[in-house]
Amino acid sequence: MDAYLILDIGGTFTRCAVFTEKSGFEPAAIKKIHTVENDEPALERIISIIHDMWPSDFDVRGISLAVPGSVDVNNGSVILAPNVPGWSNFPLREIISRHFNVDIFINNDARLAAFGEWRRGAGIGHDNLLYFTISTGVGGGVIYHGKILEGNIGIATELGHVTIDENGPMCGCGHRGHLEAFTSGTAIRNYYLEQIDGTGKGREITARVISELARQGETLAISAFNRAGHYLGIGIANYLHIFNPTCVILGGGVSLSADLFMNALENSLKSHILSENYITDLTITTASLGDNAGLIGALEYLKEKIGAN
Amino acid sequence: MDAYLILDIGGTFTRCAVFTEKSGFEPAAIKKIHTVENDEPALERIISIIHDMWPSDFDVRGISLAVPGSVDVNNGSVILAPNVPGWSNFPLREIISRHFNVDIFINNDARLAAFGEWRRGAGIGHDNLLYFTISTGVGGGVIYHGKILEGNIGIATELGHVTIDENGPMCGCGHRGHLEAFTSGTAIRNYYLEQIDGTGKGREITARVISELARQGETLAISAFNRAGHYLGIGIANYLHIFNPTCVILGGGVSLSADLFMNALENSLKSHILSENYITDLTITTASLGDNAGLIGALEYLKEKIGAN
Repeated sequence: MDAYLILDIGGTFTRCAVFTEKSGFEPAAIKKIHTVENDEPALERIISIIHDMWPSDFDVRGISLAVPGSVDVNNGSVILAPNVPGWSNFPLREIISRHFNVDIFINNDARLAAFGEWRRGAGIGHDNLLYFTISTGVGGGVIYHGKILEGNIGIATELGHVTIDENGPMCGCGHRGHLEAFTSGTAIRNYYLEQIDGTGKGREITARVISELARQGETLAISAFNRAGHYLGIGIANYLHIFNPTCVILGGGVSLSADLFMNALENSLKSHILSENYITDLTITTASLGDNAGLIGALEYLKEKIGAN
Repeated sequence: MDAYLILDIGGTFTRCAVFTEKSGFEPAAIKKIHTVENDEPALERIISIIHDMWPSDFDVRGISLAVPGSVDVNNGSVILAPNVPGWSNFPLREIISRHFNVDIFINNDARLAAFGEWRRGAGIGHDNLLYFTISTGVGGGVIYHGKILEGNIGIATELGHVTIDENGPMCGCGHRGHLEAFTSGTAIRNYYLEQIDGTGKGREITARVISELARQGETLAISAFNRAGHYLGIGIANYLHIFNPTCVILGGGVSLSADLFMNALENSLKSHILSENYITDLTITTASLGDNAGLIGALEYLKEKIGAN
């Protein structure tokens, strides 16, 4: 029987799952490890867990890896994964292929999550959709006519890294005023802390704690989420004008607080769109696959690549 | 012998051209009329010129129309063409099809110009390209994997209508701080006049005259073009992050002054991109088909749709 080895590599944790023809979209086996531990390189830990999880009784059809960074999908190298030490112009596919004699694919985690949500989640039936993962940063994926929009080498749809105010706050990438710098969990936290004492330096709080404060009625916490919603509305209006999709999916940790920013988002969106035509057939929704979006997307991507669907 | 009837409808002029198998990409016949004259509706003038130009000795394979506005490519209606009186939710294809019993296609003029530049102009060989037409306004087209990116109903790639500063200058569409509001000919003129007297109201000058002043060394005129180049660099950096193309083509009247803004554009672009990977294989160039881009694009689009290539 066929099986598929799927890895979702995060900055902190890596999950390795085995899917089989029988298991469908619940992994037949899954294991979670720290991506880096005791200075052991991520690569060695990943190769080791693939060995551990290898389902010897099955015909393993391929390995698919979701990577938290920019990936050259043509040559299978990681251009840059800021949270994985040493992964800069790193020939990930080539190295893994020395150890395992099966087809191997790698792609960006947000693009694969978009693919997963399109195939099996909140985006079913929407061949032109936008997916945003809003957490520490803001990542994105676009499905266009049923394919991941990858661009020339696979570094397209960095949807969080577009300037919407060149004098705006600093982004995680070092540029000013990107959409991410207004709407990520980090941006919500930074804004909240700056409003308290003008800098926010040296204080600790998370967007999740701020969301709890907002639900308890704290004015500043509420306004921090409204502000993020306002800028998400601007960003999404821009992307509607660029892609004219039928579906926008919000994923990532911050999307669990959609109730706190959705009104502001929708008001801002309506005031920024060129015409009603952009929202007439539009669905805006939260992701439905949760933490499994990357795994399921990587599985579906592998199956499509090897013609196993 | 086969022939094709192609119309490029502008706010001021409409050109109607006949292409034949023999004529290649120089029209066998071409005629230019005012789109509206003596209160005669554009539609009647267009139907009349198609009758006039109809090449009776040929097998007319179809009619293709480039329209200056947003077009629903599925039902063939003009959603809005601001410069053509009465063309709002206007069923253009259906009405024309009552008069001519051939295949009829309509699309946005900038998207068709992008298609023309890709097939026969500055974008040959670049299957992922961006095209900007910079004149009174800023329009755009994207070729992705060799197709016009149209979105759900054909109103995608409004590349000039994305917010890059929500407190920025007013755009032709009525929203603030769009890319167009910083980089169009109108934006260059507005900025120039505002710098003289703070408002620019009641004074007349064109971006073309300002370009001549810049070439004569006038400081303010030079800085007006540098400023446009700076913002074009921001806008193009955004679009590189979104599409990861191999080619960016600048068309429209303002692109004839590319020498006046290209340095500023490139400096701005380099300081705004996420990584060098976005420009490693990138060509930035001016359009090569000139005024014929729309006609040639509409011709190629028609031929592709009817399988005549």
